[in-house]
Amino acid sequence: MRYINTLQEGETIRNIYLCKGKRSAETRNGKPYDNLLLQDKTGTLDGKVWDPNSGGIADYDEMDFIECYGEVTSYNNNLQLNIKQIRKAQAGEYVPADYMPTTEKSPESMYEGLLGYVSQIGNTYLRQAVEYYFVNDEEFISRFKAHSAAKSVHHGFAGGLLEHTLSVVKFCEYMVGAYPILNKDLLYAAAICHDIGKTVELSAFPENDYTDDGQLLGHIVIGVEMVSDAVRTIPDFPVKLASELKHCIVAHHGELEYGSPKKPALAEALALNFADCTDAKMQTLTEIFKDKNSNDWLGYNRLFESNLRKTSV
Amino acid sequence: MRYINTLQEGETIRNIYLCKGKRSAETRNGKPYDNLLLQDKTGTLDGKVWDPNSGGIADYDEMDFIECYGEVTSYNNNLQLNIKQIRKAQAGEYVPADYMPTTEKSPESMYEGLLGYVSQIGNTYLRQAVEYYFVNDEEFISRFKAHSAAKSVHHGFAGGLLEHTLSVVKFCEYMVGAYPILNKDLLYAAAICHDIGKTVELSAFPENDYTDDGQLLGHIVIGVEMVSDAVRTIPDFPVKLASELKHCIVAHHGELEYGSPKKPALAEALALNFADCTDAKMQTLTEIFKDKNSNDWLGYNRLFESNLRKTSV
Amino acid sequence: MRYINTLQEGETIRNIYLCKGKRSAETRNGKPYDNLLLQDKTGTLDGKVWDPNSGGIADYDEMDFIECYGEVTSYNNNLQLNIKQIRKAQAGEYVPADYMPTTEKSPESMYEGLLGYVSQIGNTYLRQAVEYYFVNDEEFISRFKAHSAAKSVHHGFAGGLLEHTLSVVKFCEYMVGAYPILNKDLLYAAAICHDIGKTVELSAFPENDYTDDGQLLGHIVIGVEMVSDAVRTIPDFPVKLASELKHCIVAHHGELEYGSPKKPALAEALALNFADCTDAKMQTLTEIFKDKNSNDWLGYNRLFESNLRKTSV
Amino acid sequence: MRYINTLQEGETIRNIYLCKGKRSAETRNGKPYDNLLLQDKTGTLDGKVWDPNSGGIADYDEMDFIECYGEVTSYNNNLQLNIKQIRKAQAGEYVPADYMPTTEKSPESMYEGLLGYVSQIGNTYLRQAVEYYFVNDEEFISRFKAHSAAKSVHHGFAGGLLEHTLSVVKFCEYMVGAYPILNKDLLYAAAICHDIGKTVELSAFPENDYTDDGQLLGHIVIGVEMVSDAVRTIPDFPVKLASELKHCIVAHHGELEYGSPKKPALAEALALNFADCTDAKMQTLTEIFKDKNSNDWLGYNRLFESNLRKTSV
Amino acid sequence: MRYINTLQEGETIRNIYLCKGKRSAETRNGKPYDNLLLQDKTGTLDGKVWDPNSGGIADYDEMDFIECYGEVTSYNNNLQLNIKQIRKAQAGEYVPADYMPTTEKSPESMYEGLLGYVSQIGNTYLRQAVEYYFVNDEEFISRFKAHSAAKSVHHGFAGGLLEHTLSVVKFCEYMVGAYPILNKDLLYAAAICHDIGKTVELSAFPENDYTDDGQLLGHIVIGVEMVSDAVRTIPDFPVKLASELKHCIVAHHGELEYGSPKKPALAEALALNFADCTDAKMQTLTEIFKDKNSNDWLGYNRLFESNLRKTSV
Amino acid sequence: MRYINTLQEGETIRNIYLCKGKRSAETRNGKPYDNLLLQDKTGTLDGKVWDPNSGGIADYDEMDFIECYGEVTSYNNNLQLNIKQIRKAQAGEYVPADYMPTTEKSPESMYEGLLGYVSQIGNTYLRQAVEYYFVNDEEFISRFKAHSAAKSVHHGFAGGLLEHTLSVVKFCEYMVGAYPILNKDLLYAAAICHDIGKTVELSAFPENDYTDDGQLLGHIVIGVEMVSDAVRTIPDFPVKLASELKHCIVAHHGELEYGSPKKPALAEALALNFADCTDAKMQTLTEIFKDKNSNDWLGYNRLFESNLRKTSV
Repeated sequence: MRYINTLQEGETIRNIYLCKGKRSAETRNGKPYDNLLLQDKTGTLDGKVWDPNSGGIADYDEMDFIECYGEVTSYNNNLQLNIKQIRKAQAGEYVPADYMPTTEKSPESMYEGLLGYVSQIGNTYLRQAVEYYFVNDEEFISRFKAHSAAKSVHHGFAGGLLEHTLSVVKFCEYMVGAYPILNKDLLYAAAICHDIGKTVELSAFPENDYTDDGQLLGHIVIGVEMVSDAVRTIPDFPVKLASELKHCIVAHHGELEYGSPKKPALAEALALNFADCTDAKMQTLTEIFKDKNSNDWLGYNRLFESNLRKTSV
Repeated sequence: MRYINTLQEGETIRNIYLCKGKRSAETRNGKPYDNLLLQDKTGTLDGKVWDPNSGGIADYDEMDFIECYGEVTSYNNNLQLNIKQIRKAQAGEYVPADYMPTTEKSPESMYEGLLGYVSQIGNTYLRQAVEYYFVNDEEFISRFKAHSAAKSVHHGFAGGLLEHTLSVVKFCEYMVGAYPILNKDLLYAAAICHDIGKTVELSAFPENDYTDDGQLLGHIVIGVEMVSDAVRTIPDFPVKLASELKHCIVAHHGELEYGSPKKPALAEALALNFADCTDAKMQTLTEIFKDKNSNDWLGYNRLFESNLRKTSV
Repeated sequence: MRYINTLQEGETIRNIYLCKGKRSAETRNGKPYDNLLLQDKTGTLDGKVWDPNSGGIADYDEMDFIECYGEVTSYNNNLQLNIKQIRKAQAGEYVPADYMPTTEKSPESMYEGLLGYVSQIGNTYLRQAVEYYFVNDEEFISRFKAHSAAKSVHHGFAGGLLEHTLSVVKFCEYMVGAYPILNKDLLYAAAICHDIGKTVELSAFPENDYTDDGQLLGHIVIGVEMVSDAVRTIPDFPVKLASELKHCIVAHHGELEYGSPKKPALAEALALNFADCTDAKMQTLTEIFKDKNSNDWLGYNRLFESNLRKTSV
Repeated sequence: MRYINTLQEGETIRNIYLCKGKRSAETRNGKPYDNLLLQDKTGTLDGKVWDPNSGGIADYDEMDFIECYGEVTSYNNNLQLNIKQIRKAQAGEYVPADYMPTTEKSPESMYEGLLGYVSQIGNTYLRQAVEYYFVNDEEFISRFKAHSAAKSVHHGFAGGLLEHTLSVVKFCEYMVGAYPILNKDLLYAAAICHDIGKTVELSAFPENDYTDDGQLLGHIVIGVEMVSDAVRTIPDFPVKLASELKHCIVAHHGELEYGSPKKPALAEALALNFADCTDAKMQTLTEIFKDKNSNDWLGYNRLFESNLRKTSV
Repeated sequence: MRYINTLQEGETIRNIYLCKGKRSAETRNGKPYDNLLLQDKTGTLDGKVWDPNSGGIADYDEMDFIECYGEVTSYNNNLQLNIKQIRKAQAGEYVPADYMPTTEKSPESMYEGLLGYVSQIGNTYLRQAVEYYFVNDEEFISRFKAHSAAKSVHHGFAGGLLEHTLSVVKFCEYMVGAYPILNKDLLYAAAICHDIGKTVELSAFPENDYTDDGQLLGHIVIGVEMVSDAVRTIPDFPVKLASELKHCIVAHHGELEYGSPKKPALAEALALNFADCTDAKMQTLTEIFKDKNSNDWLGYNRLFESNLRKTSV
Repeated sequence: MRYINTLQEGETIRNIYLCKGKRSAETRNGKPYDNLLLQDKTGTLDGKVWDPNSGGIADYDEMDFIECYGEVTSYNNNLQLNIKQIRKAQAGEYVPADYMPTTEKSPESMYEGLLGYVSQIGNTYLRQAVEYYFVNDEEFISRFKAHSAAKSVHHGFAGGLLEHTLSVVKFCEYMVGAYPILNKDLLYAAAICHDIGKTVELSAFPENDYTDDGQLLGHIVIGVEMVSDAVRTIPDFPVKLASELKHCIVAHHGELEYGSPKKPALAEALALNFADCTDAKMQTLTEIFKDKNSNDWLGYNRLFESNLRKTSV
C-alpha cells in the first residue's frame, strides 16, 4: 500500500485507491478525458485519465476500489496521477479501513471512556435508556464506533461520532462540577444520546452521505424516536423524565433556525447545547489549523465569518 | 342559564359561571377586593368582589364553576358584575359545554366530512395509518372532536382542531385538482394527521393550556411520534413512505424559525404548509372581523404587521 | 424544421435557430472561436464556431435567426453543434413561434376561461375596470396572451402570464367558497389584474428581459398606474373601492422585503397574496420535477432552501 | 387666549382648547370621571372632569374646540386642569391656527425658498412637472404649506412638510456641488416632489391622521401617481425621464423593508434617500433635545436604538 | 439591623435602609403620597409614605440611607412598610455593605484563586500585563473585588465581577485541557482581563449604573485601552502578542451585533467567547431558579426566548 | 515609461511594471505557463509567459517591479502582453508613484484644505488633539497623504484616505450650517480623525492590504487608541470631552453589525455616521460610473443590492 501522503513527484506507481469522484471532460481539441478523485485514509489525489478509451482502462464507477497504474506529476504545486491503466479491485485485495479518514484516537478506549460515564448515571431509568443502545445493542455499538459525525465540516471521519460524543460528555462533566443547578444523570444521559440519530442520518463509510431519512427527518427527530424506542422497553419510566430527556435531544441545536424545533427550556438542555456547539467549533478550528505551520492569515472562513490564523505564541 | 351575551345593565342575577381568572387587589384606602374573569361559551365578563371577606363569599379557586349573585353594572362602556355572594357549584349543577367557546359548526358532520376524505385515501398503508387514530381509537376521536387548535389566536375553541383540520384537508383537495404533481393519498393522510400532536400539546377544555409535553416537545415532534406509533402496527409499511408522511408533519410550519426542524422537501409537504398557513390566517381574520359592522380601521395588528379593516364592498 | 429535442449525435444538419447568446473565446494556441447558444421552442443547444473568420460564416448578432450548417456531436453527455456555415435568415424564412418556449395549454381557451371569471364580477365598477384591459383593449389582450410571467424562475414562457393569472383566479374561486369574509368581486378583479404590470416590466419574446420601466418601477407600481388609467375612464367609480383594488395590487407580494410597499390590510389582499405565492411555488416545483423519472434527491435548491425530490408514491 | 405653556399652578381660567382626546374612567368608589387631553399650539395639558354629569358640562366630542372653566393644579410635577364647566365653542370664537403645533419658521419665506430651487431646474420638462403642483395648483400649494410631514415622530406640525422638503432640497444642493455625477435638475425635481403624497396620506390639521388612502397605498405610491398626473399634461415629456423621476420617488426610503418597492438604481435616487433619511433623523434629534438644558442621559430611545444625550460642549 | 428578609407582617420597626427609589404619586382624592423602594443586601421592600408633608418626614433623596419608622403590612401577598417617620442617616450610623446584594462566596478566596491562575501564565509579557492590574494596582484590586458584573441580569451584585471572572477562567482551564490548539498563557491572560473595562463601565455600589464612559464607549473598548496602558509599561512586549491579547478582549462577545467590533479570529478568542457566554447564561439560570422549590413552569423568559422550568430530577 | 492605458495591439514593448499577481498554470498538453497581473497607475494588464523556463525569464516574485519584453495582443477584446523576457528591476530604475492608482486631485491642496478646517476648531483641547497628528507628526502626515481608504471598494487609491476625509469634513461643514444642534468643534475634530486608524489597518502602497492589527482590531479600535495617545499628551483635557470624541470614532459605522461597538448616542456621532456613509456610497457610484458613456444598465451590484445605470439627463 502506497499511502497518498507518501507519494513523490516523478515516481511511477501501481496501487489500489477508492474512486471517490469521477467526471468526464474534453480537451479543446475534442479529446475526451476523465478527472478522478482518488482517496485513501491519508488524503485525496487528483487523477487524470487522458485516454479513457484505451484498452488499459477497464470499466469502473464512483465508489469502486480501483487499481491505478501511472506517473505522479506535479501541477500547480499539487501532485496528480496521470493514469495509464485502471482495473476494478476485488473484495479481499484491499483493506477498506485503509481508505477512510479515521479518528487518530482508539475507538475502543473512547468507547470504554463513554461506558465509564454511563455507569455514573445514578438514575436507573436514565441509565437503562442509555444502556439500551450503548451496552445492549451490539449492532448499534459497532455502527456508532465506526460512524462519522458529519458529511463534511468537523469530525467527518470514521470514529468521529464517538470522538465528538465523548468530548461533549467530558465537557458536561466539567459543567456539572461548575454549576450546581445541573442534574448529572439527566445531562450525562442526554449528552451520550444527543447525536445517536446521526447513525441513521448519515450512511456508513465509505459513502458517508445523507440518507433519505436524514434528508426528510434529520438526526434530531430520528434521535427522539430512538430514545422513545428505548424508553418504551423500560417499565415505569417516569413520563416527565422521558420528556425531559427527549427535550434535551430536541433542543440541543439551541436555536430554531439551526433545526431545533424548541429552544432549551431546562438547564440541562442549555448546558448540552453549549457543550455541543463549543466542541463542534473547537474541533473545526483544530482541523483547519492542522498542518498549518505558520501563523499567517488563512483567509476568510464562512463558518466563522472571519479571517483566521494560528496564534503567535 | 343566563348567558353572558344576554346580560343587561341594571339587572340582578344569580347564575353559575366558570371562574377563568382570579386576582386580588387593594383600593387606595387599603381595602382588599378581588377581580374575577367569568366565562361561558358566549364570552367573558369582569367580576368585582368588593368585600371578599364577607360571609357570603365562600372559598373558590380559578377554574372552579361558581354561582355568583350580584348586580350587572356598566363601567367604561363594558358590563361588569358586582358580586355579593359566591358559592362553588357541584358537578351536576351545570353543563360544562355551556362554558366553553365552541365551534359554530356540527362536530359530528365535520367528523363525517373528515371520514369521507379518509376513505378516499387509496394507498392502503396510508389509509390504515390514518384509521389507526381517526377510525379505530374511540378515545382519540372523542378528544380530537372536542379539542381546540390553539391556546389563543385562531380556532381557540372546542371543536376548533377538527374544524381547522377539515378546512386544511378541503384546501388540499383543491390543490390536488390544480397541481398534478401532488399525490392525493399522501397529501390527504398528511393533512388529516398534521396537527394530531395538538391533542397532547394542549390540555382539554376548560383548561386549554400548554401541557408539560407541549412545552418540552411541541406538537410537531409529538405528532411524528404518534404517526410512528400507528405505522409500527401496520405490517410491511414501506419505510420510504413512512418517512415521507412523517416529513410532511415535520415540515408543515414551513420555516425553521416557525418550529419545523426541516423545510419542505416534497411537493406534498409544501402544499400542506401553504394550506395550513393560509387557513390559519384566513380564520384569524374571520375571528377579528366577526361582529365588526363597519369598515373602519381596527388598529395595528401585530400578527399581520398591519392596520386592518373590512372591505367596503 | 429540425427541433432541438430531436437531434441525434452524428448527423449533419442545416436548420434555422434563434441565436440567444454569442460569446467569443480563444483556444490556448491563440485561435479564436465562438460559443453560441441556439434556441427553439423545444430547448437550447450549444454551438461552436471553430473557424469564425472562414468565408462560410456571415455576419450575425445575438437575437438574430441564423441558418446553421454543421455536425451534431456529443460533449460530456450533452449534444452540441460544430458549425461550419452561418447565414442570417430573413423574415419569412421562419415562424417565430417555433423558437419560443410556450405554454402547453391553449392560450385561447385559457383566455376564454379568464373571461368567464370577468363576467362573474357583479360589481359594475370593478367589472368595467377589468374589461378596460381584458375585453376592450385588443393590443393589451394580444400582448397579455403571449407574455411570460418571469424572465426565468416559474412561468417563464410565452403564455405563462396568462396561465399563471388564470391559475391564481381559480385559486381565489376556491377561497371565496371556503372563506365567507372574502368579497368575490374585489378578489376576482384583483386577481385578474394582479400582474398586468408584467406586460410592461418584461419585454416581449423572444427578448423577455427587464425593461427600463421594469427596473426602475417594477410591475407592482406599473400595475397600480394601469389600474388608475382604467378607473379614470369609469364615471363615478367609488374612491374607496378604487383604493381597495389598488391596495390588492400593491400588497400582493405580501412582505415589504418582497417588494410590496404595504402589507395586506384587507382580507382580499391577503387571499390574493396566498394564491399568488402558492401558485408560483407549486409551478416552480412542477418545472423542477418535469422530466425527472426517479425519486432521487435533486440537490439543494436555493429558492426552497432545501434539497428536493419527487415523492415515492 | 391663555396659551398652555403660560399657565401657572393655582390660577383659575376660562379658555378655549382643542379636545384632542377624551377617555371615560371611574374611581374605585364607582364614581365616573373623564380624562381629557387639551391642546393648543404651545403644547398639551391633562384635563380632569370629576363630575361629568353635572349641569355645567355640556355635550362635546374628541376634536371639538371646547371652552373650559376650572383650576390649574399640579400633579406629579405636571400641571393639570380640574374642569368645572365645559361648553362647545362655535366657529368664529377661536382661531384654529392657535391650536396646532406649527413650524417656527415662516411658511411664506420657506415657500419662496422652495420656488427659488424650482426656478433653478433647467430641464423644461422636469420644471413643468414641479410647477404643475408648486406654482400652478393653488389648492395644492395652500395644503402643502399647512401640512405636517408625519403623524408623530419628526416634523409632526403644521408647516412641517414644507420645512422638511426645503431642508431636503438644500441638502441636495450641497450634494450636487460635492458629487459631479449628480444631475441637478433631476435631483431638485425629485427632492421637491418626494413627499407630495403625504398631502393625501395624512389628513389636514387638526386631525393629522392617516387617511384611508394613506393606509392602503402609502405616500410613495400616491406620490408616483401624482407625478404621473403632472407628466400626462406636459407634451413630449421624455418617457425615460419620467420613469427616472418616478423612480426617485419610489426608491426614496432606500430599503424594501422601509416601504420602497425598489432600491435606488440611479445616483439621484440614492442621494435623495440619504438627504431624506439624514434630515429626518437630525430633525428628530433636534425635537428630542429641545428644552433639554443639561447633558444628562435621556434614556433608551427605540428609534435610535441607543441611550441619548446632548454633547458637553 | 433588621434585614428585609426577616420582617413579618404586623410588626412596627425603626431601621436604616438604602432608599433605592422614590416616586411621588397622588390618590384619587388628590392626596399626595410617596412610593419608596427600600433595599438592603437581603432584598427590597416597597415603602409607602402616606403623609409626605408631615413633620416626621425629613428631607431625603434617592440613594440616601434613611432611617424609617413604620408598620409592616401585607398587600397582595407582598410585605410593605407604611412609613410614619423618615430621617436621613449619617455616615457611621450604618455599614454600607449591609445594603448591597453581595456574592455568597468569599471575595478573598476567589481573589486568591484568581492569583493562582495568574501565576500559571508562563509567558512573562502576558503575566506582567495581568499583574499590572491584579497584583500591583491596589486601587484596582479593591474596586474589582467589590464590583458587580452587570447593572441587572447575571452577577449583578458586589463581588459578581470577580465571581464571573474566576468562573470564566476555570472554564478556560477545562478547555485548555480539552483542546490542544489553545495556548494556555494567552487564554488565561485574556480571560482574567476580559471584563476589566466593567470597573469603568459601571459605577460602584450602591449606585451600580452605567457611567458616561460606559454609555459612550462600553467595557470592550475601555478594556482594550486598559490593556494598552499595561502593555505600554512593559519593555519589549511583542507587538503581535499585544494585538492578540487585545483581540481576545475585542472579540469576546462573539458577534458584531452583541457589541464586538470583530468576530473571533484566533482559537483563544473563540474559546473565551464560549466560556464567557456559557457562564453568563448558566449563572442567569441559577439566579432565576434560586428559591424556586417546584418544577412548575416559570413563564416565558425573553432572554432565553422560552418558557423555563427546573428539572424533575 | 509606457503607461498601460496607452498600449495598442500589435506593438512590441520593453517596460517596467509592478507584478501585482503571479499564478502558474498548465495547458492541456501539460505545458506550464504563468499568468501575470501587471499594474501601473493607469490600470492593469494581463501578462502571459508561455515559456517560463526559458533563459530570458529571470527569477521574480509578486510585488516585484519587473521589466517585461513582449508583444501586445488582443484577447476577447482585452489587451494582453505575451512576454518573452523578464528581469527584476532595481530601485532607482523606476518611480514607484508611477505604479499606484492615485487620487486625481492634488494631495497638497487637499491637505491644505484639511488644515483650514483644523484651524476652525475653536475648542483648544480638540484642536490640539487633531494637531497632534495632522500638524505635528510629520511621519503621520506623509503616511496619511499617501494612504488609500480601502483595500478595494471606494477610495482604494493613494491619496484616497485624504480625499475621503476631506470630503467627509466638508459634508460636516454643510450639516453644521443646517442643524444648529451640532457642535462644530467636536464634529470637525471627529470627522478629521474618524479614519486615522486606517493608516495602521492597511499597509501602505503598493501592498495596500490588511495588516495583522487591521485583522485583529480594525481601524475603529485602532483609531480610538490613537486618539487616546493624543489626548494623553494634552494637559487638562476634559474627561467627558475626550470620551465624546472617542465615541464619535467608535460609533461612526452607525450599526453594530457594521463594526461599531456602540450606536451613535450624540448628535455629532450621528452626523458623522451619515457623512461617512453617504460619501462612501457616492464615491463608490462615481467609480462605478467612471468611463461609462451610455446609460445602459450595468447589471446587479451586490453592494447596492440593485441593478444600476447612469441617468439619461
